[in-house]
Amino acid sequence: MSGQRPLVLAIAGHDPCGGAGIQADIETIHSLGGRALTLVTLLTAQNTRGLHHSWPVPADLLGAQLDLLLEDLRPAAVKIGLLGSAEQAKLLAGRLARLERPVVLDPVLASGAGQPLADGPLIEALRRHLLPLSTLITPNGPEALRLSGEETLTAAAGRLQTLGARWVLVSGGHGPEGEEVVSRLQGPGGVQEAFRHRRRPGNIHGTGCTLSAAIATLLTRGLAPPEAVRQAHRYTARAVAEAVTPGGGAPIPERLDIEF
Amino acid sequence: MSGQRPLVLAIAGHDPCGGAGIQADIETIHSLGGRALTLVTLLTAQNTRGLHHSWPVPADLLGAQLDLLLEDLRPAAVKIGLLGSAEQAKLLAGRLARLERPVVLDPVLASGAGQPLADGPLIEALRRHLLPLSTLITPNGPEALRLSGEETLTAAAGRLQTLGARWVLVSGGHGPEGEEVVSRLQGPGGVQEAFRHRRRPGNIHGTGCTLSAAIATLLTRGLAPPEAVRQAHRYTARAVAEAVTPGGGAPIPERLDIEF
Repeated sequence: MSGQRPLVLAIAGHDPCGGAGIQADIETIHSLGGRALTLVTLLTAQNTRGLHHSWPVPADLLGAQLDLLLEDLRPAAVKIGLLGSAEQAKLLAGRLARLERPVVLDPVLASGAGQPLADGPLIEALRRHLLPLSTLITPNGPEALRLSGEETLTAAAGRLQTLGARWVLVSGGHGPEGEEVVSRLQGPGGVQEAFRHRRRPGNIHGTGCTLSAAIATLLTRGLAPPEAVRQAHRYTARAVAEAVTPGGGAPIPERLDIEF
Repeated sequence: MSGQRPLVLAIAGHDPCGGAGIQADIETIHSLGGRALTLVTLLTAQNTRGLHHSWPVPADLLGAQLDLLLEDLRPAAVKIGLLGSAEQAKLLAGRLARLERPVVLDPVLASGAGQPLADGPLIEALRRHLLPLSTLITPNGPEALRLSGEETLTAAAGRLQTLGARWVLVSGGHGPEGEEVVSRLQGPGGVQEAFRHRRRPGNIHGTGCTLSAAIATLLTRGLAPPEAVRQAHRYTARAVAEAVTPGGGAPIPERLDIEF
């Protein structure tokens, strides 16, 4: 039966502490019944206190890896996280368009501590090449504004749909402080839904990776996006509530052994 | 309680299919109650049919990653798998000697399909720099002969101990064909133990990674090496017995959801 786990391809950075990046994706995908395939876009030197530097994988190497993978294995969904360059974004777009599977894009533009992780050409490449093939994108507030060029979140979500994203989930973790976090999902035909959950104080490293990988995995079950998002929020909230602090810095979600 | 998972640092290659390398380590470490930290030594383009090419991570980047990790996080054990260069081996040795934690070295010299993955300088660096700080090494037969320069497995195991490895486990998967695989462990003071298990036909991609990561994780429980090896064999045998075939090539061990 375990052979039936759907394959979920996660394309993201590598975080040696395991809080974020492909390890977060692997843990999430497996917890939710998938089997992970992964491609590393960026190697990073970081610990739980912060990111020191990062090193993008050459786009041609990433392309060769993806080609070989897709010759042999057929992912049921794709999650794209942090990318290392505009070239990577273009190259992925060309190949993933032919795959015809749900793509969840987590457009990471800055680290948890606010350091910029995407330059102008990468943002432009996300907009032009990856938004049009995204089933669902999961920007936080600042990312939604930056990607769309709009000044309000409502305008941003609409603009991101116009640019080609079918569903836009603007996560609320960066919104006004308060006990509750509200994330808003907007889809085709004017569908709108809000998701509320309790805020946990402090920055939990890897929350966004967890959410987007969870949505991608849940979409392989054939769930409609609003239901996949609802369940993914529930999973992420549990992982965040159980977060552990393995080092001297940010806690990381506990994605293992959680009851869900 | 989950915060108490011991940290196990896995230093290994990255396999996009997830059969081997850091994903195999992450799955194994987590299944056995640890929490994985990982460093990537080598990116590879491969699928379940074979390895096409590989790209070693620059040694200075690996060093910067390891330094930052160890400033903040304290692994309870280390597993070293495939390395990308002699420089990587030297650099790791200097840093890991100061860590004073059990080190399990899986000296991968060739791919499952027999392609060479280590050149002369890397083999010499493993011998000179990493054997002396290894608590336990897990070569298969051909690797034991090549690393030691001896002509019989018995002589090889003794020579590897003389070169500094405290315990030597020569795994039997590459031995004479037969229904049973026999692996032999040799330790300080002439301790010898044999481990027998049923052979499964064909090459299961990632078996060696699973075994060495399991031993490293079990050593964090304070088990004596023979007991850690016994339990790691049991875990690996279960994962191999449940192996799945996600692509058109080699099966991979099912390290998730196995009862152990």
